[in-house]
Amino acid sequence: MVALGGIGEIGRNMTVFEYNGKLLIVDCGVLFPEDAQPGVDLILPDFRYIEDRMDDVEAVVLTHGHEDHIGAVPFLLRLRGDIPVVGSKFTLALVAAKCREHRLRPKLIEVREGERTTHGPFECEYFAVNHSIPDAIAVAIRTPAGLALHTGDIKLDQLPLDGRLTDLAGFSRLGDEGVDLFLVDSTNAEVPGFVTPERQIGGVLDQVIGKARGRVIVASFASHVHRIQQIIDVAHTHNRRVTFVGRSMVRNMQIAQDLGYLHVPDGVEVDMDTAATLPDHRVVLISTGSQGEPLSALSRMARGEHRQINIRSADLVVLASSLIPGNENSVFAVVNGLAKLGATVITQQSAKVHVSGHASAGELLYLYNAVRPSNAMPVHGEWRHLRANAALAEATGVNPDRIMLAEDGVVVDLVDGQAQIVGRVPVGHVYVDGLSVGDVGESTLSERLVLGEGGFIAITVAVDSTTGRAVSTPEVSGRGFSDDPDALKSAADLVDQVLDTLAAEGVSDTHRIAQGIRRTVGRWVADTYRRRPMIVPTVLAVGD
Amino acid sequence: MVALGGIGEIGRNMTVFEYNGKLLIVDCGVLFPEDAQPGVDLILPDFRYIEDRMDDVEAVVLTHGHEDHIGAVPFLLRLRGDIPVVGSKFTLALVAAKCREHRLRPKLIEVREGERTTHGPFECEYFAVNHSIPDAIAVAIRTPAGLALHTGDIKLDQLPLDGRLTDLAGFSRLGDEGVDLFLVDSTNAEVPGFVTPERQIGGVLDQVIGKARGRVIVASFASHVHRIQQIIDVAHTHNRRVTFVGRSMVRNMQIAQDLGYLHVPDGVEVDMDTAATLPDHRVVLISTGSQGEPLSALSRMARGEHRQINIRSADLVVLASSLIPGNENSVFAVVNGLAKLGATVITQQSAKVHVSGHASAGELLYLYNAVRPSNAMPVHGEWRHLRANAALAEATGVNPDRIMLAEDGVVVDLVDGQAQIVGRVPVGHVYVDGLSVGDVGESTLSERLVLGEGGFIAITVAVDSTTGRAVSTPEVSGRGFSDDPDALKSAADLVDQVLDTLAAEGVSDTHRIAQGIRRTVGRWVADTYRRRPMIVPTVLAVGD
Repeated sequence: MVALGGIGEIGRNMTVFEYNGKLLIVDCGVLFPEDAQPGVDLILPDFRYIEDRMDDVEAVVLTHGHEDHIGAVPFLLRLRGDIPVVGSKFTLALVAAKCREHRLRPKLIEVREGERTTHGPFECEYFAVNHSIPDAIAVAIRTPAGLALHTGDIKLDQLPLDGRLTDLAGFSRLGDEGVDLFLVDSTNAEVPGFVTPERQIGGVLDQVIGKARGRVIVASFASHVHRIQQIIDVAHTHNRRVTFVGRSMVRNMQIAQDLGYLHVPDGVEVDMDTAATLPDHRVVLISTGSQGEPLSALSRMARGEHRQINIRSADLVVLASSLIPGNENSVFAVVNGLAKLGATVITQQSAKVHVSGHASAGELLYLYNAVRPSNAMPVHGEWRHLRANAALAEATGVNPDRIMLAEDGVVVDLVDGQAQIVGRVPVGHVYVDGLSVGDVGESTLSERLVLGEGGFIAITVAVDSTTGRAVSTPEVSGRGFSDDPDALKSAADLVDQVLDTLAAEGVSDTHRIAQGIRRTVGRWVADTYRRRPMIVPTVLAVGD
Repeated sequence: MVALGGIGEIGRNMTVFEYNGKLLIVDCGVLFPEDAQPGVDLILPDFRYIEDRMDDVEAVVLTHGHEDHIGAVPFLLRLRGDIPVVGSKFTLALVAAKCREHRLRPKLIEVREGERTTHGPFECEYFAVNHSIPDAIAVAIRTPAGLALHTGDIKLDQLPLDGRLTDLAGFSRLGDEGVDLFLVDSTNAEVPGFVTPERQIGGVLDQVIGKARGRVIVASFASHVHRIQQIIDVAHTHNRRVTFVGRSMVRNMQIAQDLGYLHVPDGVEVDMDTAATLPDHRVVLISTGSQGEPLSALSRMARGEHRQINIRSADLVVLASSLIPGNENSVFAVVNGLAKLGATVITQQSAKVHVSGHASAGELLYLYNAVRPSNAMPVHGEWRHLRANAALAEATGVNPDRIMLAEDGVVVDLVDGQAQIVGRVPVGHVYVDGLSVGDVGESTLSERLVLGEGGFIAITVAVDSTTGRAVSTPEVSGRGFSDDPDALKSAADLVDQVLDTLAAEGVSDTHRIAQGIRRTVGRWVADTYRRRPMIVPTVLAVGD
C-alpha cells in the first residue's frame, strides 16, 4: 500500500491498497494551503502513481464526509468517471452534493456498518466509528496477502448522542482473526487521556444560552450534525427559534434533516427574514465561520459587513468549535471585531463548548489492545503526531520493528504477515488555483513569496536592434515596493548609465542588456534599501 | 493622555502623558508584523502626534526590557537624541546594547523601585513588579491633574525566584492616597485564576532533564533570565554543562551575568566547541528559536541546516516557552522537523515547562482591589482582552462609566478626578522595511498582497508615438502566475488584436493603449483561469 496524501500532514487523505495489480483507494480528500502556498485554493493528493492505471482501480471507499477525506473525489472522477464510490449514507449524500457542483454523476455504492462488499480481489468489511460527523466508518480489507484495518477518523465516545458506538467489539473480533496491518488515526496521539463525551457540551450550551439576555449566535462546523442538534435542542428549551446562516450550513442541515440525522422540532427553524422580526431573546443564529474564514458569515458580521446581521452590544457569540492551528490570527481577528462591536464572545478557552473528534492517547490504547495488530502504521498526522502514535503502539506491545513510520509516497509491503517499507513513489503537492489543477507549482509559489515580501521593480526600455542604443526613455516603476513616488528616481539615472556603457561596448543583445540592468538595479536597491524586490527588466528590440 | 500604540493590539506600547504642554512617554516598543503585512520587519508607534513637539518631551520611562516596550527607542531618539531615557538597571543595559547597534548614545537615567524622579511637571515613583524578565517596574505619575498608575507588564508571582514581589503594598498605599487613573495590563484578563509560580517550572525541568539519556536542547526567550537560571541549575544538578546558542541568547546572558541577574556556577558554561567534545548526556544547549523564527538556531537545527548541531535520535528538545498566537505554523514546523530527525520534543502542551508573564484574571482582581482607582483603563491588549479586563474592573466596583475602553490615538482627559475620552489623534501603522521607515505604507502592502496571491502578468510593447502602431512584438510574461510556459500564449494574440483595433481607431496615447490592454487581458485571465494576478501593461512611445 502507499499513501498519496495524509501522512506527514493533516489533510488530503488518500491511501491506495494494491493486490495483484488491482487498486483499492481509501479516502480522497483535500488539504488547505498554508502561508507558504499563497493564492492556492486547495491541495490535492498526487495522482501520478495511479494516473496511468485508472482501469485497475476497483473502488474508492470513503470513511466519512469531511473535506480532507472526500474533497478530491471530483478531481479523481475527472480521470475516470465510473469508479465505484463506496460509503455510508450521509457521506455519499455530501459527495453527491459536491459532485453536482462539479457536474459529475458518480456511481455510488451505499454501505452500512456490519456489511461487506467485494471489489476485485478486495473484500471490504465496514465498522461503525464515532467522529465529529455522523455515519463514519472504519474499513477492514481482506486480500490473500492479509487483513488490513483502517480506522479512518475515529474516537471512542462511550456515550454517543446517536447511540452509535465505535465498534470495539468488532475490532476485537478482527483482532482474534489476526490483523496484519492496522492503520490508525494519529491526530490526538500527543494528547493524554480521553475526549470528553460530546453530550456534555449540551449542558454547557444550556447554561451559556440560558443566561443570555439578547440574541445568540453560535458558530460551528457545518458538518457537525450532533453539535448542531444540541444547539437546536437548547434553543428549543429556552423558547428560541433557530436560523441557519451560511451557504454550507444551510445546505448540510437540509441534507441532514432529509436523511433523518438532524431533528428540528416543528416551528423551531425560521428563515432570516422571520428571525429579524423576532425579539432578540427569541433567536439563535447557527452560523459558519468558526475558523475565521474571511468570506464566512461570521467574519462579515465581525467586520460589520453582513447584509442582514448587525452585531449589537447585547449579542452573545459562541464559537462551539476547535481552533485549527494556523487559523489563530483569523479567528482572533473575528473575536476582536465582535468584541469591538460590543458582543460577548465565548470560545472553548472560556467554556467547554467544544470537544475533539479524534481519539486521545487513552482511547488509542484501547484500540491497539482490542486489535492486537502484528504491524501498525500511524496515519493522519504530522510527524509529531505519528511519533506519538508509534509510542502508544509500542507501549501496547507491538514490536517496534513492525511499526511503520512512513510518509506520503512510502510503499509498504505485506509479505508473510510482516510489513516493511520497500520503496517510494513520487508524491508532491498538487495545487488547485482557480480553474486549473497543477499548473501552479513550486516555482510559481516561490515567485509569489518573493513578490509578496518585496514587490517588484520593472525596468522597461526599447533599444535599436542593431546598435543597442535606447530609442525610448527607460521606464522604471515599482509595485509593492514603496509608497514614496520618488523612491526609484535615482534608479532611472543608473539605468541610463548602464545602457550608455553597454551601447558604447557595442552590446545589442537584449538578454545581455537585461542582465546588466538587473544586476545594477538589484545591487542599488540592496545597498539603498536593504530590500529584495524582484527585478524585472524588459528590453524591446525595435526596427529590424 | 494618549496611546500611540499598544491598545487594541499587543505590541508597540507607547503612552504619552501630557500636562501643561509638557510630555512624558511611558514605553516605546515595536510590534511584529502579521501575514497581512508582508515584508515588513517591524511596526513602530506612530510618532506624528509628538513629532513637532519633541522639545516638550521631558523623558521616556521604560517599564521593562522587552522589545514591545523598548524596541522603538532608537527610532524615537533619531528625532531627538538627548531625551532622558529612564529605567531600571537591566532594562537600560538592554536599551544601551540596542542603541549601540544603531550607533546612538542615549542619555540614561537609572532608577530603582521605591525611588522618585521629576521630569518637568511629572513626578514619577517606581514600584517593583513581577514579569517574565528581571527588573520590571510600574510607574506612578503625579501632576496637579491627578495621580496615574501604569502597571507596565505585570503578574503577581507570590514566590518569585528573585524574591522581588510585585509591590502590592505600595499599590495599596497609592490606593489610600487616591489613584485617579489606573492603566492595567490586559494580556491575560480572559484567563481565569492565577499564573503558576515560575519556580514550579524548575521541578518539571528537573524531572524532564533528569530522565534524558542523550543531549538536551532547551529553547526559551533570550530575555527570560529566571527561566534560564532554572535550566542552568537543573543542568548543574545533573552534572551537565550548558552552552548558549543564538546571538541574542549569548548577548543577553552575558549582560545578565555581568550585572548579577544570572548566576552560572564556575565551569558550568562551556563554548560550543567544548560542548561538541563532551558525551551527549553531559550537555544542555540553551537556544533561541522558541517561536519558530526561521533564521533562529533551533529552526536551522530542525531543517538540518545548523553548522554545528546535528539533531540525533536520542536528543531531547524542550520548548520552555509560550506559543504566541500566529506563530503556530512556524513552531509546529520546527517540532515536526525535529520529530522527523528522531528527537523527542516536549512543549508546554505535554509538560508544565512554561508559565505566562502576565497576570490572569484572579491576580488582576487583587490589583484593582489594592488600588481602588476612580478611573480605570485597560491597556496592552486586543479588544477581547480589553473587554475582559474592563469586566474585572467593574466586578471590583469601578464605576462602569469610568472605565475607559480606548484604542490607539484616543485622547483621555483627567479633569476633576474624572477621566473621559475627549478626542482622537491620527495613529496609523508605521512600517520599517529594511533601512527605511514609513515609505512602505498601506498601498504598497495591498499591492504586495495582490502580488503574493496571484503574481503578475506584464505586457510590454513599443508603439510609434504618432500613429500608435506597434513597432515591436508585444512581450507577455508572467511571474508568480503559472509553471506552464504556454499559460499566456493566447493572451499575446489578444494583445495584438487590441493594438490593431486601437491603432485603427487612431489612438496613439500610451495611457489609453495601456488601459485597453489591461482591461482585455484582465478579463481574459479571469474567464480562463478564474484568477486575479496584477496586470501590468507598459507602452513605450518610440520616435518623436
